[in-house]
Amino acid sequence: MHTPVPDYLAEVADACASSTGGELASYIPELTRVDPRYFGLAMATVDGSIYSVGDGDVEFTMQSISKAFVYGLAIRERGLAAVLEKVDVEPSGDPYDELSFEASTGRPRNPMINAGAITAHTLVGRDGIDAGERFDLIHRLLCDLAGRELGVDEEVWQSEVHTSDRNLAIAHMLRSKGLITDPAEEVISAYSRQCAVLVTARDLAVMAATLANGGVQPVTGKRVFSGEQVRQLLSVMLTCGMYDSAGDWVSTVGIPAKSGVGGGIIGSLPGQLGISTFSPRLDQHGNSVRGIETFERLSADMGLHLMEVAPPARSVVHAVRVVGEGEDAVRVFELSGLIGFTAAERVLQWLSEDPPPERTVVVDLTEVHDIESVARRMLLEGMRRMRLDGYVVHIVDSGDVLPDPDPGDGILLGPPPMAI
Amino acid sequence: MHTPVPDYLAEVADACASSTGGELASYIPELTRVDPRYFGLAMATVDGSIYSVGDGDVEFTMQSISKAFVYGLAIRERGLAAVLEKVDVEPSGDPYDELSFEASTGRPRNPMINAGAITAHTLVGRDGIDAGERFDLIHRLLCDLAGRELGVDEEVWQSEVHTSDRNLAIAHMLRSKGLITDPAEEVISAYSRQCAVLVTARDLAVMAATLANGGVQPVTGKRVFSGEQVRQLLSVMLTCGMYDSAGDWVSTVGIPAKSGVGGGIIGSLPGQLGISTFSPRLDQHGNSVRGIETFERLSADMGLHLMEVAPPARSVVHAVRVVGEGEDAVRVFELSGLIGFTAAERVLQWLSEDPPPERTVVVDLTEVHDIESVARRMLLEGMRRMRLDGYVVHIVDSGDVLPDPDPGDGILLGPPPMAI
Amino acid sequence: MHTPVPDYLAEVADACASSTGGELASYIPELTRVDPRYFGLAMATVDGSIYSVGDGDVEFTMQSISKAFVYGLAIRERGLAAVLEKVDVEPSGDPYDELSFEASTGRPRNPMINAGAITAHTLVGRDGIDAGERFDLIHRLLCDLAGRELGVDEEVWQSEVHTSDRNLAIAHMLRSKGLITDPAEEVISAYSRQCAVLVTARDLAVMAATLANGGVQPVTGKRVFSGEQVRQLLSVMLTCGMYDSAGDWVSTVGIPAKSGVGGGIIGSLPGQLGISTFSPRLDQHGNSVRGIETFERLSADMGLHLMEVAPPARSVVHAVRVVGEGEDAVRVFELSGLIGFTAAERVLQWLSEDPPPERTVVVDLTEVHDIESVARRMLLEGMRRMRLDGYVVHIVDSGDVLPDPDPGDGILLGPPPMAI
Amino acid sequence: MHTPVPDYLAEVADACASSTGGELASYIPELTRVDPRYFGLAMATVDGSIYSVGDGDVEFTMQSISKAFVYGLAIRERGLAAVLEKVDVEPSGDPYDELSFEASTGRPRNPMINAGAITAHTLVGRDGIDAGERFDLIHRLLCDLAGRELGVDEEVWQSEVHTSDRNLAIAHMLRSKGLITDPAEEVISAYSRQCAVLVTARDLAVMAATLANGGVQPVTGKRVFSGEQVRQLLSVMLTCGMYDSAGDWVSTVGIPAKSGVGGGIIGSLPGQLGISTFSPRLDQHGNSVRGIETFERLSADMGLHLMEVAPPARSVVHAVRVVGEGEDAVRVFELSGLIGFTAAERVLQWLSEDPPPERTVVVDLTEVHDIESVARRMLLEGMRRMRLDGYVVHIVDSGDVLPDPDPGDGILLGPPPMAI
Repeated sequence: MHTPVPDYLAEVADACASSTGGELASYIPELTRVDPRYFGLAMATVDGSIYSVGDGDVEFTMQSISKAFVYGLAIRERGLAAVLEKVDVEPSGDPYDELSFEASTGRPRNPMINAGAITAHTLVGRDGIDAGERFDLIHRLLCDLAGRELGVDEEVWQSEVHTSDRNLAIAHMLRSKGLITDPAEEVISAYSRQCAVLVTARDLAVMAATLANGGVQPVTGKRVFSGEQVRQLLSVMLTCGMYDSAGDWVSTVGIPAKSGVGGGIIGSLPGQLGISTFSPRLDQHGNSVRGIETFERLSADMGLHLMEVAPPARSVVHAVRVVGEGEDAVRVFELSGLIGFTAAERVLQWLSEDPPPERTVVVDLTEVHDIESVARRMLLEGMRRMRLDGYVVHIVDSGDVLPDPDPGDGILLGPPPMAI
Repeated sequence: MHTPVPDYLAEVADACASSTGGELASYIPELTRVDPRYFGLAMATVDGSIYSVGDGDVEFTMQSISKAFVYGLAIRERGLAAVLEKVDVEPSGDPYDELSFEASTGRPRNPMINAGAITAHTLVGRDGIDAGERFDLIHRLLCDLAGRELGVDEEVWQSEVHTSDRNLAIAHMLRSKGLITDPAEEVISAYSRQCAVLVTARDLAVMAATLANGGVQPVTGKRVFSGEQVRQLLSVMLTCGMYDSAGDWVSTVGIPAKSGVGGGIIGSLPGQLGISTFSPRLDQHGNSVRGIETFERLSADMGLHLMEVAPPARSVVHAVRVVGEGEDAVRVFELSGLIGFTAAERVLQWLSEDPPPERTVVVDLTEVHDIESVARRMLLEGMRRMRLDGYVVHIVDSGDVLPDPDPGDGILLGPPPMAI
Repeated sequence: MHTPVPDYLAEVADACASSTGGELASYIPELTRVDPRYFGLAMATVDGSIYSVGDGDVEFTMQSISKAFVYGLAIRERGLAAVLEKVDVEPSGDPYDELSFEASTGRPRNPMINAGAITAHTLVGRDGIDAGERFDLIHRLLCDLAGRELGVDEEVWQSEVHTSDRNLAIAHMLRSKGLITDPAEEVISAYSRQCAVLVTARDLAVMAATLANGGVQPVTGKRVFSGEQVRQLLSVMLTCGMYDSAGDWVSTVGIPAKSGVGGGIIGSLPGQLGISTFSPRLDQHGNSVRGIETFERLSADMGLHLMEVAPPARSVVHAVRVVGEGEDAVRVFELSGLIGFTAAERVLQWLSEDPPPERTVVVDLTEVHDIESVARRMLLEGMRRMRLDGYVVHIVDSGDVLPDPDPGDGILLGPPPMAI
Repeated sequence: MHTPVPDYLAEVADACASSTGGELASYIPELTRVDPRYFGLAMATVDGSIYSVGDGDVEFTMQSISKAFVYGLAIRERGLAAVLEKVDVEPSGDPYDELSFEASTGRPRNPMINAGAITAHTLVGRDGIDAGERFDLIHRLLCDLAGRELGVDEEVWQSEVHTSDRNLAIAHMLRSKGLITDPAEEVISAYSRQCAVLVTARDLAVMAATLANGGVQPVTGKRVFSGEQVRQLLSVMLTCGMYDSAGDWVSTVGIPAKSGVGGGIIGSLPGQLGISTFSPRLDQHGNSVRGIETFERLSADMGLHLMEVAPPARSVVHAVRVVGEGEDAVRVFELSGLIGFTAAERVLQWLSEDPPPERTVVVDLTEVHDIESVARRMLLEGMRRMRLDGYVVHIVDSGDVLPDPDPGDGILLGPPPMAI
């Protein structure tokens, strides 16, 4: 059997292909030479399955899509607090190239407008690094995310450098505010090179899936970002990534996303999918017209909206068996999947409302692949209480998902993990 | 065993109880008479389990929390399109009582500021309804959400009516823009009464859980909102519900929420939980100081952030068995849980990469409790292709989650469900 | 001889009459019934000469033109400081009916937008006065300015009252900020009545000439405002009276002005003229199209721009004679006109650079009609110094423009006159 | 006799000298080395009299004061229309170094903020001129205005060039908008040099007096600007020259003015005076603290407010004589001063209301030093009508102020002088 998933993507793409509105980006001649009919759609799961239809293997420049990943890199290198000191996370309602700074602090409004993206760019690498080294670090990150060596469109780069007055204005403003210290020309040259990195829709889908997968590249298995870094990155994509109007994107699409004037859009659905589109005709905000339409359709048709009711893990306790008889009877609880607060709560609720008549209880974690910190403590505390109630409790944990199961620390949640 | 969940909540509450910052709302004398030490925290799951600690049973007025639910009611009665014509969904960056209208269309920026909330209020009930009847409809809704009859604090109501100049200003502005047509005084009187409805933190947790549960009250089982209505409502809560700064709330807490100057805050995590806090000391934005701290801690400690990697449903195919031998061997796939796009993709991927050697395949849906529309079509199409490949495919669906399993319509996703 | 001045006005009016752009005010039906072809132009000098061409005697409602005079009345009754506490004087860049308040203080931006005008309206009369009495005081002022009893268009008044949602919104906002305390409906009713006072272009020219004449009605001779009140009033008309764009009006017309949606515009050139136009077709800002064109032409053609080089009073010493001969020779200086700082400086400069050879000096003030405070001190000090140099100095002051000519206080300028 | 005028200025200066608030400009080290106690006050009349007290002869850098004159130079070279296309004239309410552009057209808001001043700077000289030549043209203008060769503070210049990120940001923005085309570094270097031109308070007073004198340097007699250029320049100084708040300056001081962070302020009262102050301690807006206080005091104490009632030229007809007797009697009207519209109106009014009984009328213009265009036509038309009424009218015009006195063109005002 051939999986029908590509056919579904093709169907969505077909439905949006008739849309021929929008214009090619025209601020540099190189971007006007792209074939406006290109249309690619790709999807990658957190398991590493990749689907691509149409022109999913055509290369184009990342442009502003790079902002999202470089923001993550800045956080990875400097820590969230240091980055927040220099770049805020509020939707600006302004165009991407506006010189938009927060009134009270002077920070750029968010890392998705140029002012914030240029600032984030300069936070990559240790102080004193030169612009070329900084670009290499960024290039390394993007290659790690894509899982292959990515090229640079040198002509687009040179052309952007020659029409970069607006970005130079921004860089000089940032210098005047003390937010960056490197020479403006060097910063903008390296930043423009970052924007000129070449990717395909397939690449972008995998890169987005890395975010959906909590920072682990789903094909290579390499951890690129921590979970906390991804959480921050996706939050900012959700409120600042698309449109000038955050509320509209959240309510109609509900997928953290980022677009680039090269025609690409990425979307990332935590725990599920990375999605990308490539169609170079842009609306007046600089977003791909067919890309947006595709995302709206994916969200509406496929239930890929953050606020769709996610599957309640009702099958967490997917089997309860009684082994043996009489005094020797043992109650076996087979748990499965990932156990977080909500799942743990359900198990505990079940045990507390319907205590088993058997004296021996086995909690079988064989089918569980991960237990979150809070859930670990809750389960251990539950077992401790079972023991206090007189039960004999055994844990079957061949996958070692519950190491060091000392129930004694169950009650204490401890300090929250602050640092990202 | 007593479930330790209340202990965890108590632990979080204790950690935030030391915070004594903020001031009681003071614009009417009634609100200054509340005991500033009150602190309640409640949680309700989509299964209907309810936990409450501290002053979770003390009554207080809903105030602006009512805005969220009444916005949903307006959509339920008029349809989303009609409501969007009159109220936008963008975070305003303005205080809640600002006369903040969209420059181009004149609409209130969102339904969580007073201008939008008053407009949404007037969209409840058919045209020509009087203010009292409208209040009754709203009161009915709130009681349905809480699952009990709610009272009204008549003194707070009267007092608010007597200090309602700002709301009257808003109502007259809305009249001058043609957004509302009823007399300003009557509208503000009924709107103020809506704000004076009395709830407990426990009530609010259940009301929030109704949103988390896709619109079905988890205790009474009554469907109050459709899934699409809830999606819109939660999206707007996420970007406009708290603070003046949408980006900060989304990135630090990541839970759709709404606060009221009575001291309450609700949060709703789709598919999982409703949460509520009650502590009447407010910050300068009018949000409960301890409430916000509690939400931040819940999000950080318990992994209750939308962008945390949600549990990938790896156990969807939770068992594969072979029954019989040789030519008669039958491959049985047992699916479980809720099957959406991502889960269906995984099943199909599995079948396509690793086709079973047996000629007969049984898909056992006994443990599946729901299949989304797109997933239904994907599975049917997959089975159709299996048959084309020469397999005999049987479906076991005792729960009737896949009615009318005609694989013929598999390929067609059909038009998106537009109307909410 | 018939003076050709009316012919010049007619010529200007003719040149602008061809302009038929703009629309009648349409927010109430009464204003749409006006003949759109009406076109009147009137001018009044500070000497009380009045010229009127076209429909200069047709009555229409003052509307916003009343704001300027009522602002002056508020200052007259409460003092400038008390009024400034409640209404600022900055051009707002906003439409006249915007709810535009200063961010830091909450004051309306200026008294020419509705929010400021309504606040100024309520400052007329002692606290506790009722709305009818307040209107009577305002009506009295307007009649004093026009020099005749003015009527009220009762239908326009009633109609405005019935469509006053926007003004009611403003009044409630002002109440919520504590800037006004009277009931909103009563305030707006009286304010609307103020706007419905009936005037002709001829009336308005005289009213404007009263401002040009330092506050003294040039026909009746009644002092309506003090010089300081007029200075404030004209300053605010200059920066806030017309258009949304203060800089454009100042540079192209350079005449303090105020318009009303009834079709009138007044302009006032200090020391010279009051000008008014009446033509009911309005541009999108609510200013009379032909009125603006007429003012631009008057300013350009007739040199009526504040920044045109005003006549230097070179003739201040308009005659110097020597009477008598030899030892008895007396030098006579005949001064004329109004002597301010600049004129006094010229006289003193003249005496210091070219000291007369005669020992006796007569300063003849017969032709001087007024001497400003600073000039008085300068002249007295000059005479004192002449005496110290050995001159005999006599003053001829039959008009008593230099009473109590004690040169001893010459040097001291004293404290500035603070209170207005 | 020594004129007491310097004593009056000294008195005002003394009254303000106690004010020691404010801080030295600190953005470059050179400006912090200035003696903060410096305080100079100078005044120059349109007749060329110059008064200076305190540190009126200490040199300091012009800084932003140069903006006003260079704006005039741009208009002189390109015409007003061309300059308005690139720089608007609206008060911005923003700090002087804000990147403040008009929303609809992208133009800088006015030529007194840096963005507008830099644009105006680049409009000096023909296209293609290099930055050094441009500076020379500007330097030439400033020397012509001061009436002496002015130096440049080379250290201040170099220092400003090295801290010019904000101005470079502005220049790059202007380039990105197509408002300027020269390289950003060269433009800012020459612009910074313009700001570093050295002047004394005495220089500035004369420069300001040149504006007061309609563009003619009162000492050298050189025409630097036309009357129309001066009108535009003073209008913009009035609304945009000082503070962030145009309305406040106009109402409290009422003198067109411009300040610089070097500590200087100039003010210019049309037809009367140029005023300047020098005191290097600045308020938070970058205006000299003592300078502002001095201007407020000069305006209040000396009646130097534009809206003070200016001297009505009541003495225009300063003598009426009858020469001869009986049939041969001749009525002689002696006019004097400058005759504009208002003065001409008064003469005509006089003749029309009180026609002389003599048949022969002599209009004696010997004491008139100028007649404006509109007044010329009015007087000629009046004489033509007198002749039609049967009078014999003679004109005595030894000064040739009424050349080619053909009354035939009296009625026609002709097209307004559009070009500046």
